[in-house]
Amino acid sequence: MDVRSLVEELKETIDAERVSQNDTILEQHSKDESYHTPNLPDVVVFPKTAEEVSKIMKLAQKYKCPVIPFGIGSSLEGHVIPVKGGISLDFTLMNEIIDIREKDLLVVVQPGVTRTQLNEALKGYGLFFPVDPGADATLGGMAATGASGTTTVKYGTMRNQVQDLEVVLADGTIIHTGNMAAKSSSGYNLTSLFIGSEGTLGCFTELTLKVHGLPEYVMAARAVFQTVDDAVNAVVDVRQAGIPVARAELVDEQTMHVVNEHSQTDFPVKPTLLFEFHGNQSGLMEDVRLTKQILDDHNCRDFIYETDHAKRNQLWKVRHNMAYAFIHTYRGRKLMATDVCVPISELAGAIYHARKALFKSGIPGGIAGHVGDGNFHVTLMIDTNNAEEIARTKQLNKELVEYAISRRGTCTGEHGVGLGKKQFQRLEHGAAFDYMKKIKDVLDPNRILNPGKIF
Amino acid sequence: MDVRSLVEELKETIDAERVSQNDTILEQHSKDESYHTPNLPDVVVFPKTAEEVSKIMKLAQKYKCPVIPFGIGSSLEGHVIPVKGGISLDFTLMNEIIDIREKDLLVVVQPGVTRTQLNEALKGYGLFFPVDPGADATLGGMAATGASGTTTVKYGTMRNQVQDLEVVLADGTIIHTGNMAAKSSSGYNLTSLFIGSEGTLGCFTELTLKVHGLPEYVMAARAVFQTVDDAVNAVVDVRQAGIPVARAELVDEQTMHVVNEHSQTDFPVKPTLLFEFHGNQSGLMEDVRLTKQILDDHNCRDFIYETDHAKRNQLWKVRHNMAYAFIHTYRGRKLMATDVCVPISELAGAIYHARKALFKSGIPGGIAGHVGDGNFHVTLMIDTNNAEEIARTKQLNKELVEYAISRRGTCTGEHGVGLGKKQFQRLEHGAAFDYMKKIKDVLDPNRILNPGKIF
Ligand SMILES: Cc1cc2nc3c(=O)[nH]c(=O)nc-3n(C[C@H](O)[C@H](O)[C@H](O)COP(=O)(O)OP(=O)(O)OC[C@H]3O[C@@H](n4cnc5c(N)ncnc54)[C@H](O)[C@@H]3O)c2cc1C
Ligand SMILES: Cc1cc2nc3c(=O)[nH]c(=O)nc-3n(C[C@H](O)[C@H](O)[C@H](O)COP(=O)(O)OP(=O)(O)OC[C@H]3O[C@@H](n4cnc5c(N)ncnc54)[C@H](O)[C@@H]3O)c2cc1C
Repeated sequence: MDVRSLVEELKETIDAERVSQNDTILEQHSKDESYHTPNLPDVVVFPKTAEEVSKIMKLAQKYKCPVIPFGIGSSLEGHVIPVKGGISLDFTLMNEIIDIREKDLLVVVQPGVTRTQLNEALKGYGLFFPVDPGADATLGGMAATGASGTTTVKYGTMRNQVQDLEVVLADGTIIHTGNMAAKSSSGYNLTSLFIGSEGTLGCFTELTLKVHGLPEYVMAARAVFQTVDDAVNAVVDVRQAGIPVARAELVDEQTMHVVNEHSQTDFPVKPTLLFEFHGNQSGLMEDVRLTKQILDDHNCRDFIYETDHAKRNQLWKVRHNMAYAFIHTYRGRKLMATDVCVPISELAGAIYHARKALFKSGIPGGIAGHVGDGNFHVTLMIDTNNAEEIARTKQLNKELVEYAISRRGTCTGEHGVGLGKKQFQRLEHGAAFDYMKKIKDVLDPNRILNPGKIF
Repeated sequence: MDVRSLVEELKETIDAERVSQNDTILEQHSKDESYHTPNLPDVVVFPKTAEEVSKIMKLAQKYKCPVIPFGIGSSLEGHVIPVKGGISLDFTLMNEIIDIREKDLLVVVQPGVTRTQLNEALKGYGLFFPVDPGADATLGGMAATGASGTTTVKYGTMRNQVQDLEVVLADGTIIHTGNMAAKSSSGYNLTSLFIGSEGTLGCFTELTLKVHGLPEYVMAARAVFQTVDDAVNAVVDVRQAGIPVARAELVDEQTMHVVNEHSQTDFPVKPTLLFEFHGNQSGLMEDVRLTKQILDDHNCRDFIYETDHAKRNQLWKVRHNMAYAFIHTYRGRKLMATDVCVPISELAGAIYHARKALFKSGIPGGIAGHVGDGNFHVTLMIDTNNAEEIARTKQLNKELVEYAISRRGTCTGEHGVGLGKKQFQRLEHGAAFDYMKKIKDVLDPNRILNPGKIF
């Protein structure tokens, strides 16, 4: 590939100052927030419009040059690493909130808008966007990974929020995948096909998203248990009782310890469930009462309400900063987070199995997760210079994944495949995997979009 | 195509008595419940297992013979009509409920199970399946059309309920599209691609579906208005207030009249909204109180609660029998139902426009619909021997569709494309339509699956 003439043509196509080969910028686009080995792109481009993205795609076709869409690079499985070089397409400059359709509970945004930026803008309307990965990710990146978060147990994942995508395809064609009606049975559902496609099928240049009315009343609660088993069994029973919890998160004692140190908090260093309830006041009181009753049956020692806005925010801030607490505590080491998700009836067994495997491995880490959905992470802090430790970590991950898949679960509940979960795709999807490849080939025959990922 | 030798080979492949060329059976599989012109299949086959379906597909490939999956044929856009003859693949004999995974709120069923059959089986577990099209459709057919119903405003469409599909592809390969975890970011989402594919991408031989706990408390209400405008504006405000209604249906005065005659009921012949609320008792009371307040602002004259189980069921039975009421009232005529869905902010305008067009057309009919989702039907009873009337009906439908699409809505909220909405696919999807075709071609290169539909 003739990088020099590609860069020249790129500079003729869009403002030259938005086409960069600056070392720092290349380095920033060589990695994500995980343990995966970085690799430099040849050039970083900052488009401003779908039309520009289309032109860039056409140039990339001409040069058979890889294009790697880039949000803020917070993904955890090497998604944005340009393993074969090429163009890192950074959506930072496409960060406008285009329309807030209050009456339709819809917003139209550019892909570089972050989730906190969107929520800032929505506040004044009494609305919010629920999906909240631990990083302040971009909405384009979140759609591309099928992200979810602490509120998924009530509001669903990105999959449930994306109403329409404007996508620039590998050949430069610009399409819309959906519309603004609440439902449609017209044609094939391309929206869902693109969500979670990790930049391998097209670049999102505009997203229409569902937003929700701020709940009339919110209550958070912290429930402390003697054992992880008790906590997990309690949350399973709460789910099965059909109580509409808005959040149900597990933090184990190892994680709580790290979190306390990092955030200067003094939460009991015990397996803890964090809950949130959304609704009208009287309905919610009944839900909370019922929940407490179930938790008591599982030897819950402490059930502390936080109705106060500031206290509630502190609780969730701590939860959201969890990964960073690990990263700061174990400086020099890199984060590796497992991400299996299992049917809720299999959750207790899966976490029991994972804890045993974690302790056996001897690697520093802890368990936390969106247990209301059957999704949990073993956070492992690894020394990437220690080949044996990396091998041990990968073995641990493999065991967890195989356990989950054998129980009809998935290797990744939310982080996505990237580089790290490629090896499990055949095991998980069987013959269906071949047809995913066929779809990839028909939409991107020259395999220029984020090559080396998923497949 | 050598039908005779195909039939012989089919009979060698599965029990001969499940391969039929009986006239009555061919005739039953030549049509759906709408105005579309019937056409006979060459043969009807009743498979019992996925493996049999796979063998049938391989034979069909050999003979380049069309295969038209058939549920109970209740679709409304000619979906099951064998426009090019071929094999009508009837799933009646695959009607087993395989597994009720109570703890996971999941069930595994064969495609021929109907929605009422499933709900009968779930009752004893305190569970229910929410999607309720007006016909007692099969779950395979409902998944294939992306069906929805009166409870979609709370529980979503088939798209939100299908967790995994076993699919026999055009080449006979059997795949699974999903798993049993509540969420997954692994690989491309094939489940959503197959939902709504109307038998053009594969045959569903097993479905894993989400089910829901029967609500603790249910309340239905009937709200009577002076004008359709008032009723529509009221429902829009209820939605925008974020009140979690479980059902919100409009029935106009023409429809109410037909319904009363047919069901021997004496509901006021006025524009009426039918509501249902699900939840715990105290939360629900607050929701009902707030709803009533909003309806009063829109000149609601009568707001009648039905908490009693039998009365509630009567109300919804009447709603569900609506289409049949029209069919029986206008014997000799055929039903044509429009099916646009618009963003809720556009609903009042769209219904106003549709009523004007309906009255202008002079065709007997009425308006009703799932207005909580912005979806409504103009039911038209047409004389299919009257070419001029058919033309007028098609013109009316076209006007409604163009209006809806120009407001970022869709030509079909739930019935699907079949034959009747093909002509609007390009208008609605633009360039995306070409990529739907490419996906069709890669999964069914010989175009043997339900040819002539969607494309
Ligand atoms: C501390 C921490 C906590 C986290 N917690 C969670 C969590 O709770 N839940 C969760 O789901 N994830 C979590 N993550 C992972 C990460 O935040 C998500 O995967 C997020 O969706 C990535 O968004 P991004 O903007 O950083 O995208 P990037 O990392 O920049 O890109 C991610 C993928 O999307 C593609 N992409 C980006 N933009 C576009 C676009 N416009 N068009 C097409 N493709 C595009 C990229 O090519 C890449 O494949 C966490 C990460 C960290 C560091
Ligand atoms: C009175 C009346 C009221 C209705 N109300 C509603 C409503 O409220 N909401 C709504 O959504 N629809 C409604 N419909 C339309 C219809 O009931 C739905 O489209 C339903 O989903 C069709 O199911 P079926 O079993 O009859 O499928 P069929 O009509 O037999 O088939 C429908 C389509 O699915 C395909 N198919 C069937 N089985 C399979 C399979 N196993 N694998 C792959 N493809 C398959 C067929 O090829 C065809 O394309 C109504 C129809 C009537 C007659």
